[in-house]
Amino acid sequence: MSAQAPHPTVLIPGPIEFDDAVLQSMSTYGESHVGPAFVKIFGETLTMLRQLFQTKATTSQPFVLAGSGTLGWDFVASNLIERGENALVLHTGYFGDSLSECLQTYGANATQIKAPIGDRPSLDEISKALQEKEYKILTVTHVDTSTGVLSDIKAITEVVRKVSPNTLVVVDGVCSVGCEEIAFDEWDLDVVLTAGQKAIGCPPGLSILMLSGRAMDRAKNRTSPPASYYASIKNWLPIMQNYEAGKPSYFATPATQLVRALHTALTQITSKPLAERFAVHKEASQRVKKAVSDMGLQQLATKQENQANAMTAIRLPEGLAPPDVLPKLFQKGLVFAGGLHKEIASKYIRFGHMGVSVTDPKRDDIDRAIAALKEVFAEVKK
Amino acid sequence: MSAQAPHPTVLIPGPIEFDDAVLQSMSTYGESHVGPAFVKIFGETLTMLRQLFQTKATTSQPFVLAGSGTLGWDFVASNLIERGENALVLHTGYFGDSLSECLQTYGANATQIKAPIGDRPSLDEISKALQEKEYKILTVTHVDTSTGVLSDIKAITEVVRKVSPNTLVVVDGVCSVGCEEIAFDEWDLDVVLTAGQKAIGCPPGLSILMLSGRAMDRAKNRTSPPASYYASIKNWLPIMQNYEAGKPSYFATPATQLVRALHTALTQITSKPLAERFAVHKEASQRVKKAVSDMGLQQLATKQENQANAMTAIRLPEGLAPPDVLPKLFQKGLVFAGGLHKEIASKYIRFGHMGVSVTDPKRDDIDRAIAALKEVFAEVKK
Repeated sequence: MSAQAPHPTVLIPGPIEFDDAVLQSMSTYGESHVGPAFVKIFGETLTMLRQLFQTKATTSQPFVLAGSGTLGWDFVASNLIERGENALVLHTGYFGDSLSECLQTYGANATQIKAPIGDRPSLDEISKALQEKEYKILTVTHVDTSTGVLSDIKAITEVVRKVSPNTLVVVDGVCSVGCEEIAFDEWDLDVVLTAGQKAIGCPPGLSILMLSGRAMDRAKNRTSPPASYYASIKNWLPIMQNYEAGKPSYFATPATQLVRALHTALTQITSKPLAERFAVHKEASQRVKKAVSDMGLQQLATKQENQANAMTAIRLPEGLAPPDVLPKLFQKGLVFAGGLHKEIASKYIRFGHMGVSVTDPKRDDIDRAIAALKEVFAEVKK
Repeated sequence: MSAQAPHPTVLIPGPIEFDDAVLQSMSTYGESHVGPAFVKIFGETLTMLRQLFQTKATTSQPFVLAGSGTLGWDFVASNLIERGENALVLHTGYFGDSLSECLQTYGANATQIKAPIGDRPSLDEISKALQEKEYKILTVTHVDTSTGVLSDIKAITEVVRKVSPNTLVVVDGVCSVGCEEIAFDEWDLDVVLTAGQKAIGCPPGLSILMLSGRAMDRAKNRTSPPASYYASIKNWLPIMQNYEAGKPSYFATPATQLVRALHTALTQITSKPLAERFAVHKEASQRVKKAVSDMGLQQLATKQENQANAMTAIRLPEGLAPPDVLPKLFQKGLVFAGGLHKEIASKYIRFGHMGVSVTDPKRDDIDRAIAALKEVFAEVKK
């Protein structure tokens, strides 16, 4: 069925299970990063990203850099905000704290609006904060991998455009792009950053971003030079423009095999209507969440509108910790993740349901996972 | 003979031709970056790097980050030198200029000692410069990919230790690690940074560094916080230490498939004496250089002691430019690179001879390349 060696099914919130064709692209022979074959692949990849992010504005600019998803934060913090300027960070878990630290590294002042664990800041709180101070950027984690909380990007952006229209809306879509709807133009977003290894279904090692014309202007009109060299828009913009125009260009060597794998993944994704892809993820997520509820278990995100379609953070029954259940699930051939949110890491587990595990009808990963969870929880609750 | 699809042989100064087993590791199925299988692979990879860099000092610290080789510059510039401090940059081509720009991005003052194209700064010039000012770091490009010039790291470090012992010696070994000798402990180096896709023979996308205890202390005793978030030693040190100790750890998701490929490449490299590997590269390089000379052509690096074993930069006969010869070489199934040094880019081509193309006895890449060069130059000179 699969060309892959037998292995436990990985159902953590990334890296996920990968398609055979994507993995085969990873083992493409050595090639020049400025040769016509690779230039074509990289250029098409950038163009397909426009489709994935649903942007037709010619001012939108995609970037693909060798690096982890986290590099996208440095990209934002070193190009789109300057020393002493303010950033409003919406906190829905672990990633709000780390992103604030990144912004502060480059000299920005980060103010967080923190929600209780499993919840998200309200639109009223956001509106109020934006009225109090001039914020150059607002950041929001679309799906916080540490809590499974989904943010309402569309509604947040509407608030920003009403109260503080020049504030750039920066979306951390690391665990959302490819499975949660993102309409870049329609929602009027400025930055969506992501990584390959989650719902896009490409092995880890690529930092992927889409910037609006407004964000590109902000970078261009900085008074100080970019605060990073490797993550500098100034250094990468001509490279991305050239590749997309079919011309070779060099700043730093791209990860050629990973870009080929991303090309394959994006070709698969864009071959079908995106709405269909989002619907399949939603259906799988609801199946998981219903099963969790049927088992008498709670999610960290208690309100339905806060619950991500990408993953489910499952609170363990009182007295149990991840080591009580994860090894038993592993024995059944399934890899789930432990908790990540510092305050309650030992009290929950995380189940990622993205990519081929939900979109490939030949796979039964989700059914097997639900069955295994039922068996293991029945056993440990005794 | 090879499991790879038919393709032109890539003989640029990186990315190079890759071994079948390395490419197969690239297509490893999805797995958790904190699961025991990957933790073991990553830990062993870090330990093998100690062997490759020839360091047994327990204070030496390896790092492997998702990113291009260039990210290693940001790593150095944001952790090992502070705003307003001085860096001495030895310039042997394109990479001296770009590295200076990177250092300045993070606030350091970069002073370059520039050599004429094809040459390198003399030990006297270096000694004199070190006496004039306090330099926190000295950087040297071991093999400058834009010129094919080899620097004498051992001799330079001796000068530094004599004149300015606390200056950190930072070696850009992107195009040298794996084919030019580097004795980290014996030569008393502080940083060697490299990338996977050159003589190590791993596809591009990994930034690889080895730091001395002296460099680690410098990072630890900074008065200002690290100037990068993604490239911060503070953020990565516990992660690298944990992985090498066999413990899972998370800061940003590592490029799992690339790390597996690096593990395979390093397993191959360390299975034989390093001296043998360096000798094979030297032998191949001399064969290429003799052929170039026999054809009546010049190298950019005219002095023998300046000539890299990793590559050869071949000056084109008067009146010819890379487009006159590269397409003809491509028709013979060989990919060489054009010039990179801005001032003379249109006057030379570059031939990389690293990794399996020279170490695998089943391959005839170098012989075919020499034969093709002879034929093409005979043809265009007519």
